[in-house]
Amino acid sequence: MARRADTAGILAGNRISIARAISLVENDDPEAEALLRTLFPSTGTACRIGITGPPGAGKSTLTTRLAAAYRREGKRIGIIAVDPTSPFTGGAVLGDRVRMGDVELDVGVFIRSMASRGNPGGLSKATGDAADILDASGMDIILVETVGVGQSELDIARAADVTVVVLVPESGDAVQAMKAGLMEIADLFVMNKADRPGAEQAVQALSSTLMFRQADLPLPDVLRTVASEGKGVEEVLLAIAAFRDRIEADGTQARRRRERMETRIAEIVVSKVRRQLWTPARRAELTASVEAVLRGERTPFDVAHDLIERIGPVS
Amino acid sequence: MARRADTAGILAGNRISIARAISLVENDDPEAEALLRTLFPSTGTACRIGITGPPGAGKSTLTTRLAAAYRREGKRIGIIAVDPTSPFTGGAVLGDRVRMGDVELDVGVFIRSMASRGNPGGLSKATGDAADILDASGMDIILVETVGVGQSELDIARAADVTVVVLVPESGDAVQAMKAGLMEIADLFVMNKADRPGAEQAVQALSSTLMFRQADLPLPDVLRTVASEGKGVEEVLLAIAAFRDRIEADGTQARRRRERMETRIAEIVVSKVRRQLWTPARRAELTASVEAVLRGERTPFDVAHDLIERIGPVS
Repeated sequence: MARRADTAGILAGNRISIARAISLVENDDPEAEALLRTLFPSTGTACRIGITGPPGAGKSTLTTRLAAAYRREGKRIGIIAVDPTSPFTGGAVLGDRVRMGDVELDVGVFIRSMASRGNPGGLSKATGDAADILDASGMDIILVETVGVGQSELDIARAADVTVVVLVPESGDAVQAMKAGLMEIADLFVMNKADRPGAEQAVQALSSTLMFRQADLPLPDVLRTVASEGKGVEEVLLAIAAFRDRIEADGTQARRRRERMETRIAEIVVSKVRRQLWTPARRAELTASVEAVLRGERTPFDVAHDLIERIGPVS
Repeated sequence: MARRADTAGILAGNRISIARAISLVENDDPEAEALLRTLFPSTGTACRIGITGPPGAGKSTLTTRLAAAYRREGKRIGIIAVDPTSPFTGGAVLGDRVRMGDVELDVGVFIRSMASRGNPGGLSKATGDAADILDASGMDIILVETVGVGQSELDIARAADVTVVVLVPESGDAVQAMKAGLMEIADLFVMNKADRPGAEQAVQALSSTLMFRQADLPLPDVLRTVASEGKGVEEVLLAIAAFRDRIEADGTQARRRRERMETRIAEIVVSKVRRQLWTPARRAELTASVEAVLRGERTPFDVAHDLIERIGPVS
């Protein structure tokens, strides 16, 4: 097995091995499973931090600053950016050269963008796989940045030990965040660009909005940052640490990891079933059947029924 | 079958029957399939228009204006809003009372919000089902508004006869749109809020960006609107009509409907498999297995393997 060598490379923190492994999971390569299975016993030590919020809130800048601050503590950092509007994912496009600067060159930080489209095994599964690879490679902190709009994207942000929701003091931002489902997943709020006019009112509005959260959820802290200048970043680190201590003490951490594992296994199941389901033969059958449906001779439900009735045991 | 009665109601355009049927598909109710199967022969006549773009671009306002303009032509309109930041979806929350006004009260318009989370059968499938129900009920035009960020959300916007991407003249909007995958799915661009400073530059920037589209895609029109004042809306209608004529003549329409049907059947297959897969017994087995994984005795892959090896023929 050619992958054996890579396993050792990943466990030793070799960047090329890590990058190659993430490509495997991104492409839903059949080899990926054996690799992830081997790596699994080495996972579970990294702290996974989800960073989300609307486009333009400054998530990437805050992520960069958090990474730099953790580096100063000697931590090794993995960053997974699944935000399609993030400068990490498309920095080279059209001269939009916003980049991580110093942090990117630091060998203690590994940055990886995940395409938010075209992950055949599912975006959420691919991100979980990538986080496992980074975890096994010895990263202490894994920052997962996703845009806070979209079903899959929010699920990814939620699959973390701590979920940070970044907002900006713009009219209606808190209301939009609430509608988009950001309120329920936030463990910690960051009001970024807090030097803008209206920032204090926005924090007040957010705090009022939080009254509408489910009663059993603890009230999250609301912090203020100016990420572009690094202001307030240390406070975010402290708040994350305090939150982690609290959820470890009260059992929330254990419950979350249990739920996360349950979701992860379910994703693996669905991914395996999908691979078995869409054999080239069945794909061809689907394409051929469509014509009969379009001619009105059959319904899509009949075709779907035929396609799956011959599914045998999935392995 | 209690649903039989509803089928007649839907075909007759009864609003309560329609609303009830959409709730069935939204909840992935097992009864939904029989209903959709019965309705299927009555679908295929409505024109489906996807309206997407970043949050704050004015998609809901434009949707309202388009609906009103089509109403003046005597068309019956169905609106499906899957944008979590849309005023249609959360209008009652926190006093944010933006509403469709006159259009909402008009019996020729049916508006339905779909939650962007928690559709057990998948958001894209539920939206397709809802569009089929509206189509069968005699709607001429189905407007599907989704936020233009997020994997599932973009797929929904793309599953239309015409996909309209709405942007605003804000710095970097075109670049962000490109990264988010909006460029590839647009049949027509609308630069909304075109009375703002910088609108012309934004249109120019967008046109330059369009050079980067795949070479085989035709260059889409870029229209200007001030949707809040109804300006430019008639031109959008004309452009949509011209686009439809063109794709009907050149075979694109037929190809798209074929592709859409293929996707739809695949979604039905996945939804059926999922229902068979997650029996209460298997759910319980999953929950029980997680403990062994967390204790490090098993890997999630072993558990996934056990869960699916006993899947029999799916019906």
